[in-house]
Amino acid sequence: MFTARLADFVCSTQPSGIPDEVIRRVGMALIDTVGVALAGSGEPVVDVALRQAAAFGGRGEATVLGYDVKLAAPDAAFVNSIAAHILDFDDSLPTLRGHPSGPVLAAALAAASLSKASGREFLASYALAVETGGKLGRVLGHGHYFRGWHTTATVSVFTSAAAAGRILGLDPPKMRIAFGFAAASAAGLLKSFGTMAKSWQVGRAAHNGFLAAWLASQGATASDAVFDGADGFFGTYSMGDGKPAEEIAEGIGFDWEILQPGISFKRWPCCYGAHRAIGGVLQMVQEHDIRPEEVESIDIGFGPNGDRALRSRRPKTGLEAKFSFEYPVAAAIIDRAVGFDSFTDARVNRPQAQRLIHATRRVQFEGEGVFTAHVGYNDVTIRTRRGDFFKRVSQTPGSPTWPMSPEEMRAKFLDCAGMVQDAGSAQQLASALAGIAQADDVAAVFASQTKSWRKSPHHR
Amino acid sequence: MFTARLADFVCSTQPSGIPDEVIRRVGMALIDTVGVALAGSGEPVVDVALRQAAAFGGRGEATVLGYDVKLAAPDAAFVNSIAAHILDFDDSLPTLRGHPSGPVLAAALAAASLSKASGREFLASYALAVETGGKLGRVLGHGHYFRGWHTTATVSVFTSAAAAGRILGLDPPKMRIAFGFAAASAAGLLKSFGTMAKSWQVGRAAHNGFLAAWLASQGATASDAVFDGADGFFGTYSMGDGKPAEEIAEGIGFDWEILQPGISFKRWPCCYGAHRAIGGVLQMVQEHDIRPEEVESIDIGFGPNGDRALRSRRPKTGLEAKFSFEYPVAAAIIDRAVGFDSFTDARVNRPQAQRLIHATRRVQFEGEGVFTAHVGYNDVTIRTRRGDFFKRVSQTPGSPTWPMSPEEMRAKFLDCAGMVQDAGSAQQLASALAGIAQADDVAAVFASQTKSWRKSPHHR
Repeated sequence: MFTARLADFVCSTQPSGIPDEVIRRVGMALIDTVGVALAGSGEPVVDVALRQAAAFGGRGEATVLGYDVKLAAPDAAFVNSIAAHILDFDDSLPTLRGHPSGPVLAAALAAASLSKASGREFLASYALAVETGGKLGRVLGHGHYFRGWHTTATVSVFTSAAAAGRILGLDPPKMRIAFGFAAASAAGLLKSFGTMAKSWQVGRAAHNGFLAAWLASQGATASDAVFDGADGFFGTYSMGDGKPAEEIAEGIGFDWEILQPGISFKRWPCCYGAHRAIGGVLQMVQEHDIRPEEVESIDIGFGPNGDRALRSRRPKTGLEAKFSFEYPVAAAIIDRAVGFDSFTDARVNRPQAQRLIHATRRVQFEGEGVFTAHVGYNDVTIRTRRGDFFKRVSQTPGSPTWPMSPEEMRAKFLDCAGMVQDAGSAQQLASALAGIAQADDVAAVFASQTKSWRKSPHHR
Repeated sequence: MFTARLADFVCSTQPSGIPDEVIRRVGMALIDTVGVALAGSGEPVVDVALRQAAAFGGRGEATVLGYDVKLAAPDAAFVNSIAAHILDFDDSLPTLRGHPSGPVLAAALAAASLSKASGREFLASYALAVETGGKLGRVLGHGHYFRGWHTTATVSVFTSAAAAGRILGLDPPKMRIAFGFAAASAAGLLKSFGTMAKSWQVGRAAHNGFLAAWLASQGATASDAVFDGADGFFGTYSMGDGKPAEEIAEGIGFDWEILQPGISFKRWPCCYGAHRAIGGVLQMVQEHDIRPEEVESIDIGFGPNGDRALRSRRPKTGLEAKFSFEYPVAAAIIDRAVGFDSFTDARVNRPQAQRLIHATRRVQFEGEGVFTAHVGYNDVTIRTRRGDFFKRVSQTPGSPTWPMSPEEMRAKFLDCAGMVQDAGSAQQLASALAGIAQADDVAAVFASQTKSWRKSPHHR
């Protein structure tokens, strides 16, 4: 039942049947994801992925973000999905318990290289695919993640299959087959964190999801009811703590995940777990005109497990600093802004930054329930020579309750794209993406941008 | 600990350190697997896989069994692994709870196209990879399979990584990384049974395993201890009913899986669950000169779950007949032999065969423990006009306790290879494979055979 309902939703929902607000938010997600993928496209793991594609893949017509090379569709999906996730700067969806957009964009763009898609249809496929991820996440529950699976990889095989399958024009019976192939390749472990395999497995999710849709389009066979029954995907991969599939199936097409809980965007290029505190500190600095030299100490209060991902307390490198409370808060006080520049080793080791890092304490308070980047609050106390300032921060910058402004979204995009291309072409790309809903051919819009990007060092 | 021990075993064991009997059996497995892959190479799912490789893959130097085309190494691994498994005629290893050879051969051959390997080294890598599968299977236990995973796919990612990694010359630290990448792509569901996705996911295991080894060879990073700790592969994929990893680690390199429980070969191209009964009936027919027209009834006695996979009781097609007791037993009585020819729809529907099918009853007896194709017994009673004949059959044809003779192995190979090439070239190939231990370059041995094979319809 779940399989058929989901396939029908993905294939049969007309663009006109999707709420305008859903399409608006998906349009923002698309731009944000292109930006972070451009920013990530120079990372070493993307170089490895390009080398893999050059050694074993074919040429094709699919765009690789950040590079002036066209690859076979699944290879492009693979590389673009890696680039979008490698910086951990990509959007997140609480019910998916991970990052929805990278694999969806990557698979949709790959499919669009085989099968011309209009901007309207592209945004619809994007929305339906993200919805797919949220619904699957609700059935999988938290236990799937805690058991050791990297949900952004395991669930994204299905979202990628949905996005690509929709664009390839699958009918509902074939979309069911695509989900069967997706399940046959669902993988990715938390154990990969801290290594290239983390973003690689997210790249493979887009690759496998694209292939699943393509195989279904070719008449290949797989389970056509892979979400149903005790022996299906949920029976094997879920720990049983999620919602019943039948109950979630009833909400498909009615309760839009993109509206509630909604997509959250990353405001700063560091762990989302520190975003709430950074947002609060930036407000306090502004309201009280706090200057770094007058700060005596900083207390960050957090709830149970609220600093779990923030493993560095006394960071010395940019990478460590991204996974700390202490440095981003120090940077917010010193620079009154946080950006890519903030996370160089040199900036982290500024004497003033190190002084504030050492003046920061974490204070764990008691609390009920789960505290995450999305749920709960932080208490921030800044002690200065002229008095103490206190703020309880209960909303997260970048989330639907404290959304980024259009100017902030635009600044983030230009920052990111500026790592690959000049400011003029980045602005041109931003405009093209902002108008994508009116495009006749999305693949052509992307293809028109490639000249301002790098050559792939591994392709002749 | 387990990860390091296994990587060290795979990389550091010298061919001279592997028992001769292990190498002899692996040599038989290699020939048997090439045969079943040639026989399977004309199946529709192989056509789909070739189409996938043609659409998206690159060219390369790797041999595709049954086709006169060379593909990029991971694509060849993918296609060959599918071909070896599609007929379900490939060998099995009880502790792996699945079929070891297809992915191992496919990944090793792909690696040999990049990195010249001698026959001696090739057989060593094959043996060490199969050992890897048996050890992982012992830790995973039966629960992994009962939970819904197709062990032949999930475990074979690691065996393929071991085989390819050994041939690519990885050192132990890099082999650990290869296992990390393998775990990041371990997938395959029982839910795929009865569809193309079943052998496709076994093909992807070889593909992913090869890539895992290649990525490690390129300096990419992944977990270097993926089997260790509660958050590792076992913690996520095992149901906790297997042996402790530390205990199994101690046996690595001492208790050879290939010797005990040993590799079983399929004697006939039908479900292994019927092999014991077929073997008994063929003996009875011979001993008592039983003729089909005098047979009044046949009783097949089996233990708990002993006929679980034999879903067809009154088969009407060749495919149904492969998963029945009734037809193969009838064919054994009528033809005194069982082969590919036996499983045409026409042969199944012969009046005499249908009469015997309807004269056969399944009689379930009580028993202790697990009854499988490898463990337990069958009671066969054949009632004829001149009296009743009874036999308890407790060994399985093709297993180490009732091994196929060299003549039977050779006949099976020639039958299989004969589906692609003429008898003369099949015999030539058999000789080349029988002498592989002396070959300087295994890839060249295979490449020399391709002229007698088909063109790929999807490659120009």
